[in-house]
Amino acid sequence: MTRDELPSPALLLDLDRFERNLQKMSAFAKTVGKRLRPHAKTHKCPEIALRQIAAGAVGVCVAKVGEAEVMAAAGVRNLLITTEVVGPEKIGRLLGVLARQPETMAVVDHPDNVRELAQAMERAGRVLNVLVDVDVGGRRTGVEPGEPALDLARAVQHASALNLRGLQGYAGQCAHVMGFEERRKASRRVMTRLMKTRELFEKNGLPVDVVSGGSSGTYNIDSELEGLTELQGGSYAVMDLDYRRIGGKNGAYDDFEMALTVLTTVISVPSQEMAMVDAGLKSFSTDKPFVPEAVEWPGVEYSFAGDEHGRLMVTEPGRLPRLGDRIEFFPPHCDPTINLYDRIYAMRGDVVEAVWEIAARGRSQ
Amino acid sequence: MTRDELPSPALLLDLDRFERNLQKMSAFAKTVGKRLRPHAKTHKCPEIALRQIAAGAVGVCVAKVGEAEVMAAAGVRNLLITTEVVGPEKIGRLLGVLARQPETMAVVDHPDNVRELAQAMERAGRVLNVLVDVDVGGRRTGVEPGEPALDLARAVQHASALNLRGLQGYAGQCAHVMGFEERRKASRRVMTRLMKTRELFEKNGLPVDVVSGGSSGTYNIDSELEGLTELQGGSYAVMDLDYRRIGGKNGAYDDFEMALTVLTTVISVPSQEMAMVDAGLKSFSTDKPFVPEAVEWPGVEYSFAGDEHGRLMVTEPGRLPRLGDRIEFFPPHCDPTINLYDRIYAMRGDVVEAVWEIAARGRSQ
Repeated sequence: MTRDELPSPALLLDLDRFERNLQKMSAFAKTVGKRLRPHAKTHKCPEIALRQIAAGAVGVCVAKVGEAEVMAAAGVRNLLITTEVVGPEKIGRLLGVLARQPETMAVVDHPDNVRELAQAMERAGRVLNVLVDVDVGGRRTGVEPGEPALDLARAVQHASALNLRGLQGYAGQCAHVMGFEERRKASRRVMTRLMKTRELFEKNGLPVDVVSGGSSGTYNIDSELEGLTELQGGSYAVMDLDYRRIGGKNGAYDDFEMALTVLTTVISVPSQEMAMVDAGLKSFSTDKPFVPEAVEWPGVEYSFAGDEHGRLMVTEPGRLPRLGDRIEFFPPHCDPTINLYDRIYAMRGDVVEAVWEIAARGRSQ
Repeated sequence: MTRDELPSPALLLDLDRFERNLQKMSAFAKTVGKRLRPHAKTHKCPEIALRQIAAGAVGVCVAKVGEAEVMAAAGVRNLLITTEVVGPEKIGRLLGVLARQPETMAVVDHPDNVRELAQAMERAGRVLNVLVDVDVGGRRTGVEPGEPALDLARAVQHASALNLRGLQGYAGQCAHVMGFEERRKASRRVMTRLMKTRELFEKNGLPVDVVSGGSSGTYNIDSELEGLTELQGGSYAVMDLDYRRIGGKNGAYDDFEMALTVLTTVISVPSQEMAMVDAGLKSFSTDKPFVPEAVEWPGVEYSFAGDEHGRLMVTEPGRLPRLGDRIEFFPPHCDPTINLYDRIYAMRGDVVEAVWEIAARGRSQ
């Protein structure tokens, strides 16, 4: 199949760019002496996770047990579930993941959760690898750095069915800070809390084999932190407009290539200034304050026009699309856009080389 | 299964409320002498479509061929595809829908599309029911009202494999105008264009058996249009925060009940002012400028905190949720929120009465 034969809207991955992205991040991690554990919440696709591992990653992160189930079933090893696993239903399913991939790690930020995990593991005769999730100022999950983190780590240590491995600190608030130096300052400021907590762990004889964090925006900033053992970036594999705009070490953020697009079709040309494509807010995520950008089609500006419509205003004369024209767009934000699709068309130029199921799509449970 | 046993985040439908919504809209349509053709793009769920028809609807609208395929396969009859079907791939699949449900209607707004549809139908030995899609000022799809619409209708008439049935005019821009009288004025202004075009059709001997339009915001406004034969509202069946805020005939918009919620679990309580739930921007759509609202849990305010996290700030003392607490939220916008889930739990009180597949989820193709 070629691009022209695909039903639109369709999610396309440019394999040449994607493969270069994987190679580049793996080579970077190797050079700086960090392990790479890319975040699979970005793509939710076992085929991509397996390729990341083949390119040198130690395993992948997932956000939820539902994603872990899909990855584990597909043979993806060394999973880290980066969000707390709370309550009997979720912990029961975590046991199912452990049955397939016993080395899977979970994170904790509350003594009650440590207790319920420890009891469930003991009853099941399992040992769960655990990281203490430290809040580095993102005001999301995580225990406070310093003594509170240390106390929680000791609670983990005391549970015979839990195996403390180290720490996690995710500074999501820093990932998209505009300008490399600004971002470096922001990340350094907050990640210092994680590093100090790491020192405290070490001083108290607690394991720090795994200290996990970082994003596609800070991978080459957090890599300077001596105590950090692994990098978690996700978007680097496919990229999006949000990352492209943050600025890189040498001006533009051209660290990774824009490999992900949404293919659309022009379904209406109601006037000389306007054309409608068949992709609206059910085909692109809307969580960013900017909109999809047409690829190799200058002179048009996209705006959302409902669930299934995108409006193209013509800004340059002679650029009016015709009925049936196919136009690709870069998505504003890759993760939630991918989560709208069931499959990704892996393209080699104009040819569909493979169709990969986004098997963990919608697996937020 | 009961609510407490459901994996979260989960999409819940309160059946008592939902059934009353269906009854109320059907009774209304009957009273005003209009046919009801609810828009199934809202729910994408054949089980719901079949219940709407059982409650009195003549059929359902769908936005895309992909949705039509799912509905047709599930035995849902009298489909109207409200978006133009353009290009050989889509038209090929439309033929598949017609093989199951020959009475299916499509809309057109361009002579080239009329031509390709006519040729494909002729080749396949099929006759396609067609409405002329009229732009009533929404700046989306649709041919201009008046003479341009008439010209297009004549092109449809001349094609032996196309069967002109009438017109469609969807005024999406009016659906959420705040205040009933303001909304009435806005809708009346634009729908007049559709009515005038209808008169022009009639005067020229063209069929106007079907004149389709309306929304859950304007159903009891558009019902006053004598020439309108059917109402298209979708959200009324389940409702959302967006519709609840627009105001109704007697002050508040309490025409239909809030039947749809997202069930979440508290997975982290990092401080005395804040708790995190396991539902973020992959569990609620983000296309509206307001956020999910906690049901029966006053004193907390939700904000998005990433793909899989929602942050609850405590605004009243003593309302801090505990780890593992289950909190339901009304979604800002029902259609794209439902599109994130694979199934809907149909609840009778706290008991799961049925699990319905959202079989057309992601079927934007």
